[in-house]
This record gives sequence, C-alpha cells and structure tokens, in this order.
Amino acid sequence: MNLVVQTESEKRMKMQPVKGTRDFYPPQMAVRNFIVDGWKASSIRNGFVEYDGPIFEYLQMYQVKSGDEIVEQLFNFTDRGNRHLAIRPEITPTLARMINKQINALPMPIKWFSVPRLCRAERPQKGRLREFFQWNIDIIGIEDVLADAEVICCSLDYLRNTGLTSKDVVAKISSRRLLAALLKNIGIAEEKLESLYPILDKKTKIPVEAFVEMLEKEIDSPETIQAILKLMDIHSVNDIPDIVKLDEKAQESLDELKRVFAYLEKMGAEDWCRFDMSIVRGLAYYTGMVFEIHDKSGDLRAICGGGRYDNLLSDFGGPKVTATGMGMGDAVLEILLREKGLLTDDSLDIQKLDYFVACVDGDLFDEAVEITTKIRQKGYAANFSYKTNALKKQMKIADSMNAAKCIIVGGELKESGQLVIKDMATGEQILVDATTFLE
Amino acid sequence: MNLVVQTESEKRMKMQPVKGTRDFYPPQMAVRNFIVDGWKASSIRNGFVEYDGPIFEYLQMYQVKSGDEIVEQLFNFTDRGNRHLAIRPEITPTLARMINKQINALPMPIKWFSVPRLCRAERPQKGRLREFFQWNIDIIGIEDVLADAEVICCSLDYLRNTGLTSKDVVAKISSRRLLAALLKNIGIAEEKLESLYPILDKKTKIPVEAFVEMLEKEIDSPETIQAILKLMDIHSVNDIPDIVKLDEKAQESLDELKRVFAYLEKMGAEDWCRFDMSIVRGLAYYTGMVFEIHDKSGDLRAICGGGRYDNLLSDFGGPKVTATGMGMGDAVLEILLREKGLLTDDSLDIQKLDYFVACVDGDLFDEAVEITTKIRQKGYAANFSYKTNALKKQMKIADSMNAAKCIIVGGELKESGQLVIKDMATGEQILVDATTFLE
Repeated sequence: MNLVVQTESEKRMKMQPVKGTRDFYPPQMAVRNFIVDGWKASSIRNGFVEYDGPIFEYLQMYQVKSGDEIVEQLFNFTDRGNRHLAIRPEITPTLARMINKQINALPMPIKWFSVPRLCRAERPQKGRLREFFQWNIDIIGIEDVLADAEVICCSLDYLRNTGLTSKDVVAKISSRRLLAALLKNIGIAEEKLESLYPILDKKTKIPVEAFVEMLEKEIDSPETIQAILKLMDIHSVNDIPDIVKLDEKAQESLDELKRVFAYLEKMGAEDWCRFDMSIVRGLAYYTGMVFEIHDKSGDLRAICGGGRYDNLLSDFGGPKVTATGMGMGDAVLEILLREKGLLTDDSLDIQKLDYFVACVDGDLFDEAVEITTKIRQKGYAANFSYKTNALKKQMKIADSMNAAKCIIVGGELKESGQLVIKDMATGEQILVDATTFLE
Repeated sequence: MNLVVQTESEKRMKMQPVKGTRDFYPPQMAVRNFIVDGWKASSIRNGFVEYDGPIFEYLQMYQVKSGDEIVEQLFNFTDRGNRHLAIRPEITPTLARMINKQINALPMPIKWFSVPRLCRAERPQKGRLREFFQWNIDIIGIEDVLADAEVICCSLDYLRNTGLTSKDVVAKISSRRLLAALLKNIGIAEEKLESLYPILDKKTKIPVEAFVEMLEKEIDSPETIQAILKLMDIHSVNDIPDIVKLDEKAQESLDELKRVFAYLEKMGAEDWCRFDMSIVRGLAYYTGMVFEIHDKSGDLRAICGGGRYDNLLSDFGGPKVTATGMGMGDAVLEILLREKGLLTDDSLDIQKLDYFVACVDGDLFDEAVEITTKIRQKGYAANFSYKTNALKKQMKIADSMNAAKCIIVGGELKESGQLVIKDMATGEQILVDATTFLE
C-alpha cells in the first residue's frame, strides 16, 4: 500500500481563499470601506444607532423562522461542549434575540443599524457570495407606515449619495397584507398563502410558462390561476379596484399602502418609487409593506429588500412588537456602482499621507526617522523612505503613497537647521526652520 | 417511550448568545468603535494601509505553523464540498497567503494593518473571549530593526492617544535570536530550543518552583538550569556580558537589540520601553526581536505582543521575505482603559444628532416629517418625534438622542412660515424663515 503524501506544490495549491470568499487587498479594502462608510453615514444621518452581534449563534436560532431546510445553507459546526452552532447567514434573528432580552430596558421606538459580515453555504454566483457584508436598518415599535416609508427613504438616501439617480434605480413597493387580502378575494384559502408566496416571488425571475406550471401544482382552478396572473400584472394602486372586488380588509390594506406612497411623496422620494404587485419577498416573515430596490436595466438581482415583520419578536419568544427594516448587500451594489461608473479602480485613495519624509544624506537618516515620528505624534499621517537613495526615486514612492507634501532632509538641515517642504501638487518648495516646524 | 418535547420556555432559554461571545448593544458598540477607530487612526498616521481576509479559511492553513494541536482550539467545520474549514483564530496565516499570492506585484516594503474579528474555541476567562477583535500591523520586506522599532512605536502611539502614559504601561522587549545564542552559549543544544521557548515564556506567569520543575523535564544538568534562571533574571542589556560569555553570534544579536533601543530613543519612546529577558512569546514563529506591552501593575495579560518572523512567508510556500509585526486584542485593552478611567460608560456618545424636529401641532406632523427629510438630505443627522405629544416630552427625547439643536414646528409655521430653533446647550431660541432655512 502506498501512503498518499502531499507534495509541496499540492500544499501550495491549497493555500487559496475558499471559493466564494474574498481577499481584501488594500484596493479592495478601499472599496469595502467606501461602501461601508457610506452606509454608516446614511444610517447616522437618518437617526439610526449602531449595534452588532456575534459572528456565530446557536444553530437553532436560524431554524425558528426557516425550519430545518436552512441548515443546508448554513456553515454549521459543533463545539467541544457539543453545542450546535452556525455562522450567521443574516442578523435579524440576532436583532430579535437582543431586543427581546432587553425589552423592558430599551426605550421605544428603536432605530438600529448594523453592517454585519454574513456567510451562506451557497454556490457562488454573480452578485451572490458565500461571505458578504450587509447593511441592515430596522425600526422597532412604530406601527404606522411612516416607519416603512422612512426605511425605504433611508435606503434611497444612501443610493442617492453614491451618485445614483431615479433613472438608475427604482424602489418597487407592495404589501403582503394587501396581497393576502386580494388572493383571498379571488378565492384562495388562507392556508395556501404561505406556500404561494415563494412562487409569486419568482414571477419576474422565470419564464411565464414555468411560473404557471408552478402555480398549477398548488392551484386546481384555471380561472384562479388566470386571476392571479392578472393580479400580478397590476402596476398602479389605482387599478386594483377595477381588477379585484375588494372586501373591507383589502380596502384597508390598500388605503394603508396608499399612505406609504403619500409619505414617500412628502419625503421627496416619489420619483424613485413605484407600486409593483410582483414584489412578494420569499420569506414567510413579512406581514405588511414589502419592497425591493432594483437597477432599472433589470439585469441584476435586487440591490436591497425589506419590509414590515410584526411577528418576529414574538416568534423569538418576546412580546408582540411591530417592526420594519431592510437589508442591502455589498456584492450587487458594487457591481452596479461599477457599471454606472460611480466606482472605478482609481476613484478611491488607497493611502493618503500628509507628509513623506525623504532623506538624501545617509548621515541624516536617523534625523529623518526622528522627524517622521514627531510629525506622526502631531497627528499627521507620515512615512519615511527606508533607503537614502536618489531623491527622484523617493519622490516616486511619495507619489505612490499619495503624499500631499514632502519633507526633504538634506544639506539645508546640516548648514542652517532647515527643511525643504515640497508641495506635491504644485511642485512648489519652501524652506522652514526645522525646530519651529516640529514644535 | 416518551418523546422529548421542548417547551416554549426551554426554547427561550436557548435564545442566548453563545458563551464567550458578546452582544454589542449601542453602548457596547460605541466602545468597540472607539477602540477600532483609534486603532485605524494610529495605523494611518504611521503609514499603514488596510487589508482583510475571509472570516474562514482552509483548516490546513492553521496547521502549517502550529500542527494538529491547534485544531482543538479552532471552530472548524466541513462544508458540503467536504472541505475542512475553520473560523480564523489569527490573521497572520491569511496575511502570509495573500502576500505570497501577489509577491511579484506588490511593491516592497509592505506596511499593512487590519482589525480582524477572530474566534478561538477556548474556555472564556478575564480578558480572553471566544470572539474578539485584534489590531494587527505588519511591515514586510525590511530586514533592518528600524521596522521592529517602528512596530513598537506605532503600538505605543495608539496607547498614548488613549491617554495612557509610560506610568501605566511598559513595552518589554527582548530578542529570540539573542536568547537562542545565549542558551547555546550556556550549553543548550540547538534542537532543544523549540521545546524550551513555551516553557521560558511561562517564567513570569507561574511560581518559580513550577517553572524549575518544567525545566527539569527538559534539562538534566542542575547547573544549566541555574544558568537559565540567572539568564532570565537579566534586566539590562548591559549586564548580559557579565553573566554569559558571548560568542560572535550572541554579540551580533546583542548589538542588534541595542540598535532597536537606539531607534526607540530616536523615536522618543525610551520612557515606555525596557529590556526584559523573560519576554519569549510562545510561538515557534519568531526569529528576532520579540516584545509585549503590559500594564505596569502586572495584573492583566499582555495588552499586545509581536516581533520579527522572517520565515513565515517561506513556511507558507513563498520566498524568504523578512517581516515584523504585532497584534493587540480589544478585551484586555478595554479592561485596562476602564481601570484607568480613560473609558467610562458615559464618556462616549452613543448618538449625536444635529437636529431633532419636534412637532407640537398634529396638523403639522407631515410638515415635520418633510422638514426632517430635507435636513437629512442636506447632510445633517436628524430625527423627528413619532408622536405630537407635549413639547417637554419631545425635548426629553431630543436630549436622549444628544441633539445639538431642536427645530420646533408649531404655530409660528402656520402664522408666518417660521420655525423655532432651540440650542439645546444654551437653551437659546431663535426664529428663522422655514423656506430660507431649508433651502
């Protein structure tokens, strides 16, 4: 029997990141920071405060709402204490757990945001990775649709700030409550709804024949299927009463949805928003307004999605407290920003130094190090050259580090205690007294 | 047979964070941000650029340097493709992998920093959690001890900026190379060194009897053990030649260590640094200067530790490139900052609004929402009250959100299109024209 021995080159082959994860070299890290910093700024502007949870939780946390099927999509493991744990695929269960735990101490309403790192054990695809970052905002404790409108507006506020316009993206808005009422009005039984949502959610993602085929598995009556197709094609709230006869509950839900749009108008977001019956969201979780923001070309997955989920806290063992929120991942967003030219490989500074200290006289090298340290202690970002080679070469390094100014340590320091300060943008050079400058 | 059925209360019991992990409610998140932002600022000031890697890697990555024993300390799992993976317990292997991968494209020297989230499957203790954040800085490609001094200085730069002084903390510095040379000079065989390091590292952490007992298991000669004890008690580099007869290699290493101290003096850090032979660091990994920063009271674990590791890149299948760096965790640091009164529960703002919009007239509620949205779009952080209750109550909410100013939407808007702007610090109120103010 031969032993299988790994060769050095086989070992090296394994020294790869795991498929679907990313290495953030400084240029990629700059992109991630650009996105995350923008998310944080929008959250703070819109009055949200930051929270976070652990990267792993009890596996059971993720089974509460999604059952055992979710386990397949999780990176799950068992620790030495035989606890069944999983890396978080979303942060909402953590949010529910945390809020329930301090429900009596936390003043309502709660406006929280987070930018969790999340992992899903999926096959990597365009805009869908096994490890990603997701901006989450949630408003807990406000029953009025004002909070729903605020969540949509905050998402759009971020996108507007990246340079995207209402020509690029659209918030498609509907209501789970309205959809449920309408489906019941066309004769669908209450208990059918939950299994229908994931199918209806697929409407715009698959050919119509495939969609009808999926419906036929759930619904016997061809007339009902026709009614559903008609329903899913409505593109204005005002058309609804012409297509379905509304009962009181449906009328109430419709009025509520109209109020969402009225608030969005007050918030100056009407150009960015439109009603879209085909927005269903897959999860059983949602109870009211649902929305997704899409690129208008329609080539990409949703940029973000969310809605009202009034039962989640109670599903996690807490009291019944209303909630609404959304999540926006970094992968689709980055693709879109690049497509629109709002993010290019050289639009971000990887580094930005206030000073680069160049030393052109080996005898003065220690002084150059000392000067750099003093400048850093004054709060400026500074680097020095590790070699006292030709000034031209050092200037090139200074440029590569995006230095605003260069301090040249040379003969002037020896002769008259002076430093040359070169402005890297204008090329202008001035002489300063070293002692005064570093004071 | 009875089925084991979980009751609702049992399920709720499980809705806990996993032991050794932390929930970051807004106050705890503010602390984390305070620490992480400080780390990032120091890194940037000292000329480092940010990188990051995936939260999980191939398990094998962590076995390269630490063998199979490390597996027990990792949260490891198998994905559906039967890949053996682990949540990262440190970022240095990722750093080595990433640099090796782009070794021909990356200009040297490399000065990189990262603030990874790390996990270790340990028993949680004071200052030691199963999930934590760790600041890492590394300089790759500079053989001179100047880079070692720079790493120590950058770590101290951060600590100084938190308000800590050289009265609070001390950087204890030694050299693995010097230690190896001295141990050989007192008669220890080369092949014994690697097993001795983890023991010598324990010197200050355990009673002297226990330390001697550990040594006796490795070394037969009582004279050699006495020589080691004498060696480990040296507290000045200048005393070394009096205690051990130095060969050429030992003398070289000593001179090199002296140069580290000379640089630290140039960098104005001499008050913060001292030689300490007992600093060994457990890992086999280090090849030159090693250091740890400790609180002077000595009650806590090391605040940070690091040193030179010239073989790591080649151990990971890359070329032989010199490197030096350090890691500082958030847990011990937070304990120390709290002990020294440099971080208190109310020293950090959880929220800071530019404006809070109070509405005292139900008819004007929509206007208050509109005004808030406009202010947010101008770039200010703003919130409104979801209820038009008594002004006093709304002012209390504004205060709890740390609002700098309050905009009162009331009769003045109806009568003359004006808003009341109240300065929350001084209590001063002024009237402004709404249209001009929001323009």
